[in-house]
Amino acid sequence: MEAFEILLPLAVILLLSKLMGLGAHKCGMPAVLGMLVAGILIGLLQYIPWAPLQEAFFGEYVTYFLKVMSKIGVVLIMFSAGLGTDLKKLKQTGVASIVITSLGVIVPMGLGTLVAFLFRQPNENALNWLFYGAILTATSVSVTVAVLKELGKLDSKVGTSIVAAAVIDDVIGIVILSVLTGFSGSGGSEGGGWNWFSPGAGLVVIKIVLFFIAAIAVGVGLRKLFDLMERKAPHNRRVPIISLAACFLYAYVAEKIFGVADITGAYIAGILLGGTLSETPYVESKVDEMGYLIFSPIFFAFIGMSNIEYFASISLRFLGFGLVFVAAGLLGKLLGCGLGAKMCKFSFRDSFRVGIGMMVRAEVVLICTEKGVASGLVDPAIYPFVIVIILLSSILTPILMKRSYRKEEQQLMSGGASV
Amino acid sequence: MEAFEILLPLAVILLLSKLMGLGAHKCGMPAVLGMLVAGILIGLLQYIPWAPLQEAFFGEYVTYFLKVMSKIGVVLIMFSAGLGTDLKKLKQTGVASIVITSLGVIVPMGLGTLVAFLFRQPNENALNWLFYGAILTATSVSVTVAVLKELGKLDSKVGTSIVAAAVIDDVIGIVILSVLTGFSGSGGSEGGGWNWFSPGAGLVVIKIVLFFIAAIAVGVGLRKLFDLMERKAPHNRRVPIISLAACFLYAYVAEKIFGVADITGAYIAGILLGGTLSETPYVESKVDEMGYLIFSPIFFAFIGMSNIEYFASISLRFLGFGLVFVAAGLLGKLLGCGLGAKMCKFSFRDSFRVGIGMMVRAEVVLICTEKGVASGLVDPAIYPFVIVIILLSSILTPILMKRSYRKEEQQLMSGGASV
Repeated sequence: MEAFEILLPLAVILLLSKLMGLGAHKCGMPAVLGMLVAGILIGLLQYIPWAPLQEAFFGEYVTYFLKVMSKIGVVLIMFSAGLGTDLKKLKQTGVASIVITSLGVIVPMGLGTLVAFLFRQPNENALNWLFYGAILTATSVSVTVAVLKELGKLDSKVGTSIVAAAVIDDVIGIVILSVLTGFSGSGGSEGGGWNWFSPGAGLVVIKIVLFFIAAIAVGVGLRKLFDLMERKAPHNRRVPIISLAACFLYAYVAEKIFGVADITGAYIAGILLGGTLSETPYVESKVDEMGYLIFSPIFFAFIGMSNIEYFASISLRFLGFGLVFVAAGLLGKLLGCGLGAKMCKFSFRDSFRVGIGMMVRAEVVLICTEKGVASGLVDPAIYPFVIVIILLSSILTPILMKRSYRKEEQQLMSGGASV
Repeated sequence: MEAFEILLPLAVILLLSKLMGLGAHKCGMPAVLGMLVAGILIGLLQYIPWAPLQEAFFGEYVTYFLKVMSKIGVVLIMFSAGLGTDLKKLKQTGVASIVITSLGVIVPMGLGTLVAFLFRQPNENALNWLFYGAILTATSVSVTVAVLKELGKLDSKVGTSIVAAAVIDDVIGIVILSVLTGFSGSGGSEGGGWNWFSPGAGLVVIKIVLFFIAAIAVGVGLRKLFDLMERKAPHNRRVPIISLAACFLYAYVAEKIFGVADITGAYIAGILLGGTLSETPYVESKVDEMGYLIFSPIFFAFIGMSNIEYFASISLRFLGFGLVFVAAGLLGKLLGCGLGAKMCKFSFRDSFRVGIGMMVRAEVVLICTEKGVASGLVDPAIYPFVIVIILLSSILTPILMKRSYRKEEQQLMSGGASV
C-alpha cells in the first residue's frame, strides 16, 4: 500500500466521527459514543465483498497504522488526564471523597469479579475475573459535570465531592490496572495455573514499586528542567514538544522495562509534569487539541471497526454474562458511592445523587477494556456490553439527576421539608 | 511489533529534532536543517549491529508507520501553505512580482534541466531532467522575511515584492510539479521512450484540467458549507476537523483518481478553503500546531533517516553533477529574480536584494525532491545536495542582505548617493 492511500480511511474516520459525535452530543450523550458508532458503521464495510474497499479500509498495513495511531491516541488521553490531575487539590479533598471513592471502587470491582467468576470459562483464572472487575472501577464524570453545571449545582456539596472523588478514582484505577497488567505479563494469563505466591508474583510487585520510584525520580528532574525553560521563555512551543516526548518515553519504558501498562506510564508522566507547573494548562491544551483533531477519533472509531465481528457472534452464555455485567457496573457504582456518601452523613437524596453522578462511564472504561483485551485477560465480546454501560449511564444519569433536583424544588416550593 | 513500541522512535525523533532545530535556529538557520540533522544522526544508528535497536528504529512496520506519518506531515505543510495563500492579495501584487517570479522560475528550472541533461544517465529522459529543474523552482522565504523584519525593511519595495513573488512562485511550482508527476504516472519514466505527442500525454493533460475543474467546483460548495457553519457557531472545533478531512480527501483523490500529486491536492484544498474565509487563521493555526508538534519533525527526520545510505555511496560523477546542481540552484534564482526586478526598473542594489531574498530554500524544496524520488524521476542521491542548497542559501542570504543594507546606510551617512 502506498503511503498516500491512508488518507482515504483517515478522512472517512474523521468526517464520520465528527458527524456522529455531534449527533451524540446533541442528544446529551458523550461524543465518544458517536465516535464508536462511526467506527461500527465503517466496520460494517468489511461485509461488502469488494476487494479495493477491503484493501483501503482493512488491509494489513492500514490496520497496523490505525492500531498505532489508536495507541498514541490513548496515551495522549491518559497523559492529558494526568496533566489535569492536581495532586495539591487532592490533599484538600477531605475524608468524604476518599470514602466515596474507596467504596465506589471496591463495590463495582467486587461485583464485577463475582459476576465474571460465576460465568467463568474453563481457561480463566482469578486474574481474568479481577480484570473484569477492574474495568468497572473506571468513571468519567464529564456528563455529570455538564448536567450539574446546567442545574447550577456544580459548586454544591454533591458537585465538589463528585469531582474530587473522580480524581481519586482515576488514581486508584490506574494502580489496580498496573498491578493486574504486571501480573498478566508474568505469564499469569496464559498458564492458567497462576499463583499469588509464585516467585513471579513477588518480582511483579518489585517491578511496579521500582517503576513508581524511577518515574517519580526522573519526573522531579524533568520538572526542574521545565521550570528553568519556563523562566527563560514562557509559553514557548518547545515545552509541549518535550513534554510529549517525555510522555512517550514514560509509556514505553513502563510497558517495555517494568511490565506496567503503557497508559499508566503516560498518566504518571502527566501527573508529574502537571499540577503546579505553570505551563501545564498550555501543554494540556496543545495535547488535547492534537488528540481531539486526529488521534482520539481514530482510537474510538478503531474500537468499533476492529471489534465488530465479536458483536455479531456473541454466545447465549456470554449474553447472560454481559447483561449481568452491565447491571453490576451500574448498580455497583450507585450502591458503592451512595453508601460512601451516606456514611459521610450526606442526606439520603444527596447520597443518591453522588451515586448516579459517579455511575457515568465514557473513555476510561473503554481504555481499560482495550488494555484487558490486548493483554488477553478479557474477551473482546465484552465490548458491546461496555458500550451499553456507557450508553445507559449517559442516558440515565442526566434524567435521574434532573428529576431529583426538580423534586426537591417542588417540595421546597410546596413547603415540604428538604431531607 | 507491538503498537506501544512505536513510542520509543517517536520520542527520540521528537526530542532530537527539537534540540537540533533549536540549535539551527540559534545559528540563524531554518529549523528544518536541524530536523534533517536529527534524522541523519538517528539514521546512523543503523550501522550499529544490535538487533533490538535495528528492530526498534528500522523494522518494517516502524518504517512503514514513519513513512505514512511523513506523508501526513507533508500534506499538512502544503495544506497550511495553501491556507496562507490569499488569492485576493495576489490580484493586487502588480506586474513586478509576476515578472520577478516568472524569471525566477524559468531561469533556475532551465539551468537545472540543462545541468541534469549534461550529466544525464543512460536510463533518463526529458521528464527526469525537467524534474531536476522543477526542484530548483521552489523557494521558502521565511529566512528572508526574518532578516528583513530584523532590518526593518519588510514593508519596503524589496520586502513586499519578495513576499508577493514567493506566493506566485508556490502556485507556479505546484502546477509544474502536477504536470510532471502526471506524466510520470502515465509510464513516462519507466519506459524511457517517453513522447510528448503520445496519446497518453493528452490524457494526462485532460486529467489535470479535469482535476482543477472538479477541485474548484467542490471547493466552492465546501466554502458555502463552512460559511454557514461559521455563522451558526464561530470558532467551533468542528471547522478544523472537517477542513482536515477535506484536505485528506483532496490529496487522496488528486493522486488516486487524477494522477496529480497528493501535495497538489492538499495545496489546492488549502487555497480553496483559505483566503476570504474568516475561520482560516483559526484552522491554519490548528493545522500548524498539529504539524509542528508531531508530523513535521517526523517528515524531516525521516528524510535524513531513510536516505543516509545514499549520502555515503555517491559516485564521483554524481558528485560533479550535485555540485553544479547546487550552483544552478543558487545562481538560477539570484540571476532570474534579479533580472526580473531590474526589468521592472528596480535599482541595481534592490534587484540584487530581491535575487538573494528569493534564493533561500527550505521545506518546499525537500517536499519537491521527496515527490521526485517517490515517483522514480529523481535519484535519491540528490538529497545531500538539496540539503547543501538549503544550508548555503540560509547562510548566505542573511549575510549578503545585511551587508547590502549596511553599505547603503554607510553611503547615506557619508553623503554618498543611494543608487
